[in-house]
Amino acid sequence: MTKLADWFETSNDATKVLLRLGARPDVISLAGGLPAPELFPGDAVADAFAHVARSAPAVSLQYGPAEGIEPLRALIAAQMRKEGAGSVTAENVLITTGSQQGLTLIGQTLLNKGDRIALDEPTFLGALDAWRPREPGYTAIDWSGNTPVFKPSSDAETMPKFAYCLPNFRNPTGETMTLDARKALVAAAQRDDVILIEDNPYGALRYEGVQPASLISIADQGGDGPYDGHVIYTGTVSKTLAPALRVGWMVVPQRLLHGLIISKQGLDLCTSPLTQYAALHLIETGVEAETSERARDLYRIRRDAMLAALEAEMPAGVTWTRPEGGMFVWVTLPEGTDAHDIFQRAADARVAIVPGDVFYAMNPAHNTMRLNFTNVPEATIAEAVQRLAGVIEGRARNAA
Amino acid sequence: MTKLADWFETSNDATKVLLRLGARPDVISLAGGLPAPELFPGDAVADAFAHVARSAPAVSLQYGPAEGIEPLRALIAAQMRKEGAGSVTAENVLITTGSQQGLTLIGQTLLNKGDRIALDEPTFLGALDAWRPREPGYTAIDWSGNTPVFKPSSDAETMPKFAYCLPNFRNPTGETMTLDARKALVAAAQRDDVILIEDNPYGALRYEGVQPASLISIADQGGDGPYDGHVIYTGTVSKTLAPALRVGWMVVPQRLLHGLIISKQGLDLCTSPLTQYAALHLIETGVEAETSERARDLYRIRRDAMLAALEAEMPAGVTWTRPEGGMFVWVTLPEGTDAHDIFQRAADARVAIVPGDVFYAMNPAHNTMRLNFTNVPEATIAEAVQRLAGVIEGRARNAA
Repeated sequence: MTKLADWFETSNDATKVLLRLGARPDVISLAGGLPAPELFPGDAVADAFAHVARSAPAVSLQYGPAEGIEPLRALIAAQMRKEGAGSVTAENVLITTGSQQGLTLIGQTLLNKGDRIALDEPTFLGALDAWRPREPGYTAIDWSGNTPVFKPSSDAETMPKFAYCLPNFRNPTGETMTLDARKALVAAAQRDDVILIEDNPYGALRYEGVQPASLISIADQGGDGPYDGHVIYTGTVSKTLAPALRVGWMVVPQRLLHGLIISKQGLDLCTSPLTQYAALHLIETGVEAETSERARDLYRIRRDAMLAALEAEMPAGVTWTRPEGGMFVWVTLPEGTDAHDIFQRAADARVAIVPGDVFYAMNPAHNTMRLNFTNVPEATIAEAVQRLAGVIEGRARNAA
Repeated sequence: MTKLADWFETSNDATKVLLRLGARPDVISLAGGLPAPELFPGDAVADAFAHVARSAPAVSLQYGPAEGIEPLRALIAAQMRKEGAGSVTAENVLITTGSQQGLTLIGQTLLNKGDRIALDEPTFLGALDAWRPREPGYTAIDWSGNTPVFKPSSDAETMPKFAYCLPNFRNPTGETMTLDARKALVAAAQRDDVILIEDNPYGALRYEGVQPASLISIADQGGDGPYDGHVIYTGTVSKTLAPALRVGWMVVPQRLLHGLIISKQGLDLCTSPLTQYAALHLIETGVEAETSERARDLYRIRRDAMLAALEAEMPAGVTWTRPEGGMFVWVTLPEGTDAHDIFQRAADARVAIVPGDVFYAMNPAHNTMRLNFTNVPEATIAEAVQRLAGVIEGRARNAA
């Protein structure tokens, strides 16, 4: 009987379950992390792929360079420079098959079994999934002092290999890191020579307020490139154009680029040149910017609908985050409530949510849950929150 | 200074170098493994993507299931059953981002550090690249007896986790495994409970003769599925349609499917549904079959041109394989010749080849090289072989 690799002892199929939860047509799903499909620019995507395949089949349908096509890398580098990372050049940019692959590449390139990763819990489930095959350990970033600490002083272990953050509208909490926290994090990374992963899938989805500077722009000393600072940045068109393009990117310090490219070609040889040229076309012709703007308008309404419904419906003792952007609200239930119990009862009431404990690598908070507000219309959100509140209230009454 | 993971101590950038070798416009490249770009059905691909994106944007542009879209999985299962693997159902099929990702998935799902892989050398470089991050060991399949042996009796180690083969037109040698060898291999795998990987990227590219039965059809006992035998099969549209679709698949025993799907979602969440639906459309409308037939016609001519040129030009003491299909001829130089030396001198004569030693995991033969015959027209092949023969002859004269 074939035995799976040891890392499966710590694996789960949470992502698979989440992606499937919304499939039942009679269930309102607040469980996924899916964009609103009504935003997808189908005709523009059709035109872009057709244009590329027809005008340059020999290049767009062939294998491409492992690091990605040069014009897309140059365009991303120019965007990064414009946003303050002044020394980034095309050489620093590596195109990935979705930004999930970027996380896989980082783990595969940097981690030996037992190496540690520093992070704030709860965190992105897909990152934990990406790194599990490398069998890492985890440590919480200690924010209690003047500057964040990556390694507990009581710990005999070495520094973590890298620290992972989602500074904008973190999945699952929706929280945004302040500018002061960003500066402190970069200073600590430079002091301890620790790589910072700045995962930024939701950056374009800000519905109010002003975005603090990115970690990479704080870390970048400017000047002539290629960039060689302490931050790896990951981006994607999944939230601004369409997930199915599977086009993401990493902005990588020069000293790590070679290793990441070797890793990348082992994983899938190259990301589709056809899709990369189509994504480039969709960015250059303004379709991405326009889709992104429509997303902000739509998601702002849905976020507001969710916050209003929570305010109106939730029983006392339930609290939640008020995200300035992104896709998620994080709900904390009264102490002692088990969100898995709520999950089951909510499913009976035909509402899907995600129990919060799956987003932890170390110390799960069992009285938490994640709600998504991007994938269903506002009236449906209100209906779902009402049902959910009923479930939570009923549970509280039963417990009393 | 950030240290890369330990597996980089054994890594090389051979694939990257090979993919770039052909880029210099004044060099004739026999080095790559690229299809002829003039075969790519650009207009049909344009139509397929446009049709899918326009007619079903909500599904084709969204995230999809980690295992792939059901209709493509069902179509591949039906093809496998037609080719003799009678118990294969859609449930056994996992869509991958190119068949390279299938190899990565197998390594990630089955290998712990130090686990061994059995194979015949020389072998596919991309497979070695895919498995290197898992830090495996290697063992040669012993074919000296009545039945192949996966584990040398002198060896204290356990059985290999799996055995890897390219039964049809092996990269890099072009050789095809006989039916008797296939039967013996499957019997040995069943006896020792070892998984066999049947990597079949070139199966459709047969230019003469009859294909022996696939390993999976020999291993499959038929009957009601899902299939749960000893063979994992991998296929791709890269050689029959276009590499840039990055659509491959694995046919997987039922007991391994769950582990492979968990692995897959960690790597890139899902393969693009847009591309999968487009590939399905291109298969269903006959474009893939037609492209494949045009490839066979074109590549037969190019293979014959290469074999004729080798016959006419090569000095005594040089031998080569005569592949019935695929993309490569394997050349053995006189004992003592270093193919890296030939590689350098050939580059000076503006011809690119691949020194054979990069295709070995254990005991490299330094007097070997791989020639590709699919990517350049027959007159150019003849010119390249003539230049190469001159280099080899000159080298022999200098050595004498």
